[in-house]
Amino acid sequence: MSDLTLADVQAAAKQIEGAAHRTPVLTSRTIDALVGARVFLKCENFQRIGAFKFRGAYNAVSLLGPAELSRGVAAYSSGNHAQAVALAAQLAGTSAVILMPEDAPATKVAATRGYGAEVVTYDRYSGDRAAIGQALADERGLTLIPPYDDLYVMAGQGTAALELIDEVGPLDALLVPIGGGGLMAGCATAATALSPGIRMIGVEPESGDDTARSLAAGERVGIPVPRTIADGQAISMPGELTFAVNRRLVDGIELVSDDEIRAAMALAFERLKIVVEPSGASALAALLSGRIEHLPERVGVVISGGNVGLDRFRELLDPTAA
Amino acid sequence: MSDLTLADVQAAAKQIEGAAHRTPVLTSRTIDALVGARVFLKCENFQRIGAFKFRGAYNAVSLLGPAELSRGVAAYSSGNHAQAVALAAQLAGTSAVILMPEDAPATKVAATRGYGAEVVTYDRYSGDRAAIGQALADERGLTLIPPYDDLYVMAGQGTAALELIDEVGPLDALLVPIGGGGLMAGCATAATALSPGIRMIGVEPESGDDTARSLAAGERVGIPVPRTIADGQAISMPGELTFAVNRRLVDGIELVSDDEIRAAMALAFERLKIVVEPSGASALAALLSGRIEHLPERVGVVISGGNVGLDRFRELLDPTAA
Repeated sequence: MSDLTLADVQAAAKQIEGAAHRTPVLTSRTIDALVGARVFLKCENFQRIGAFKFRGAYNAVSLLGPAELSRGVAAYSSGNHAQAVALAAQLAGTSAVILMPEDAPATKVAATRGYGAEVVTYDRYSGDRAAIGQALADERGLTLIPPYDDLYVMAGQGTAALELIDEVGPLDALLVPIGGGGLMAGCATAATALSPGIRMIGVEPESGDDTARSLAAGERVGIPVPRTIADGQAISMPGELTFAVNRRLVDGIELVSDDEIRAAMALAFERLKIVVEPSGASALAALLSGRIEHLPERVGVVISGGNVGLDRFRELLDPTAA
Repeated sequence: MSDLTLADVQAAAKQIEGAAHRTPVLTSRTIDALVGARVFLKCENFQRIGAFKFRGAYNAVSLLGPAELSRGVAAYSSGNHAQAVALAAQLAGTSAVILMPEDAPATKVAATRGYGAEVVTYDRYSGDRAAIGQALADERGLTLIPPYDDLYVMAGQGTAALELIDEVGPLDALLVPIGGGGLMAGCATAATALSPGIRMIGVEPESGDDTARSLAAGERVGIPVPRTIADGQAISMPGELTFAVNRRLVDGIELVSDDEIRAAMALAFERLKIVVEPSGASALAALLSGRIEHLPERVGVVISGGNVGLDRFRELLDPTAA
């Protein structure tokens, strides 16, 4: 693959069929009335490992050849991609080594180990995870599965939009959270091909606006590591491959505050009865902000993940906290 | 209708089609592994008004004649039935007066008013809600929609089991929360007809074991108003019509503690990514208790509702509370 096409996403859909869940699409009269549109929520919080990341990881891992599978895979991630690669490796009958920061939450480390992966830790504040991950992979002869900057990973993530449009029909706009940009690159590739004229709206946390800045500059721009509750979107520069797709297909970026994300998580809890992690709620937060001008009639929103523990959820939505 | 049959439940399914949601069925490898069975969760927390109650209420209200609709309906309810009748009345173009306990959750009172109903309150621990409700209905010429002891209401609730078996095929057992017994009566009627040999297991909170006692006694037995977090199951005596069905079709009752219900709510949050209210989690709690002997292979569980506000949820699952 030299660039990403609808055919790549369709091939990924076949590849992950039976392994990944076809997640439900929820609708809500409350949300429709609040925003004045017909809204379709693609609920990747119900995906395996609790986030869309499994789609891309499984696509990439399961397409490896016998020689690569016999040696194993590696990934660096403090979050959902770690569990996604660990589970994908287990299902593909290979081993996985996951590089995680020393201070990663114990529950995430335990969940990753629970899928049979070996966890190797590094110091988040001094180490360059990409370099350490590559060194680890080279040293052990493992295939590195990147979290987003990989065409098979991007194609896998795009199956979320493919399924959504297949189920509900053409959309006028689709809101997608952007971290490294893999979910958006895949979804934009599928959605613009299947729904010509669709408006692709990326959503980033205010402090993690690297893609917004990069689109404005016409080239990839780096920012300091963002501080936001949306940990899955705390990325300081768009991917090279993802940005090449997104600069071509994304129509605009909306920025949301942490408080807007919290409000979207609360609304998802109380009205939709679903658990959404901060990054997973950012696209819904953008929709609810009222700042999207000329919102069209039929709007898709990707709810990208639901991995937030009970204690963290309580802490995030504590009205008595400062 | 003199007794409840599969045909009644099928007629209700037609009647509510398009008004009620066909709710999703979730499965979880985590839960399957924990209990050693294939588990199918019928998620009525995604039903309109957030609970199964809408099925029965809409069936009963929408079948009223023009004269009754012109006068309006009334209901007494600790929560979900109130919202169900309020919304059913709104959809059927009539008015509703709802009698609610003074200490009903604020979110439920607000939601009921939100559907355009008039709310009248009473003291849960001293007043006889059935008598007050009947007096209110008589005085204003309203048709009382009972929360469970009504064949059309029971038939409507049974559509949950009808849909579940239609979607996943025959089941070996079905766990259903019991409050007044309407959900169980409808579900048992449908499930035993569609899945001959199915084991119908009712679930009550420990302190609200009126149906367990009544089944043991062979007749309806009253208990003091139960104090339990499962407010939808805080009922002191089975219904007359529901008990006539349930004594015939229910194979056994499991009792669960409030702490077991809390644990089930937490598991639903963290692993299933869904919000379940205490009563809605009781059947799952019974399954997870490990006390159901000879658990068969294919087990259905009705998750009956998800109406728990964020504050109440935080309070219920606060690990620092006494």
